[in-house]
Amino acid sequence: MTTAPAPSARDLPHPARDEIRLEGVLHALSDPVRLRIVRELAAGSDELACSHFDLPVTKSTTTHHFRVLRESGVIRQAYRGTAKLNGLRRDDLDDLFPGLLDALLAAAVRQAARLGTD
Amino acid sequence: MTTAPAPSARDLPHPARDEIRLEGVLHALSDPVRLRIVRELAAGSDELACSHFDLPVTKSTTTHHFRVLRESGVIRQAYRGTAKLNGLRRDDLDDLFPGLLDALLAAAVRQAARLGTD
Repeated sequence: MTTAPAPSARDLPHPARDEIRLEGVLHALSDPVRLRIVRELAAGSDELACSHFDLPVTKSTTTHHFRVLRESGVIRQAYRGTAKLNGLRRDDLDDLFPGLLDALLAAAVRQAARLGTD
Repeated sequence: MTTAPAPSARDLPHPARDEIRLEGVLHALSDPVRLRIVRELAAGSDELACSHFDLPVTKSTTTHHFRVLRESGVIRQAYRGTAKLNGLRRDDLDDLFPGLLDALLAAAVRQAARLGTD
């Protein structure tokens, strides 16, 4: 009898594309900090390290927000050495929900302009 | 000195258009029951009574879901006699976030078809 290896602190489980649910994506984006992370990821073409983001929350809260984004299927995270790199799962989201990500990003930009929070 | 009247059980406070926040709208739609209510409201042109909806939850949970939708600015509720009528705030949402509501509804329809939950 074999036992599964204990999960490592470096395990980063991701939902497969067909496990991604709209409700989970919307929940992930219903927080202003997570919405801001997604906007920054969408603005560039590169993966970004967690440490790149200058967020008004503690390090452990930052880790939590990235985990919610990963577990809902919005971002992909991978270790490169000791850094955790983050990228938007744009292909998966566009395939599942065509046009949705762009509409959400446009709405976030528009609101930030309206409220002067950019 | 005057005091404000006690809030009545029939008070139904709504956010003004410019108080509606994207994060609140996404939170409201991040629940499968609330997403279903919004899809039904979007499918017709009429306001619908809460009792119209055949939802797999208790009456008090139903009331809670409608309140979340109202307080986030997604729906408008008004009493007609003893019935509470519900309508989507499509004009307000389209004005604040052009294209978002349609993209969200299309994503919900597409997911329901994919998962066979319609």
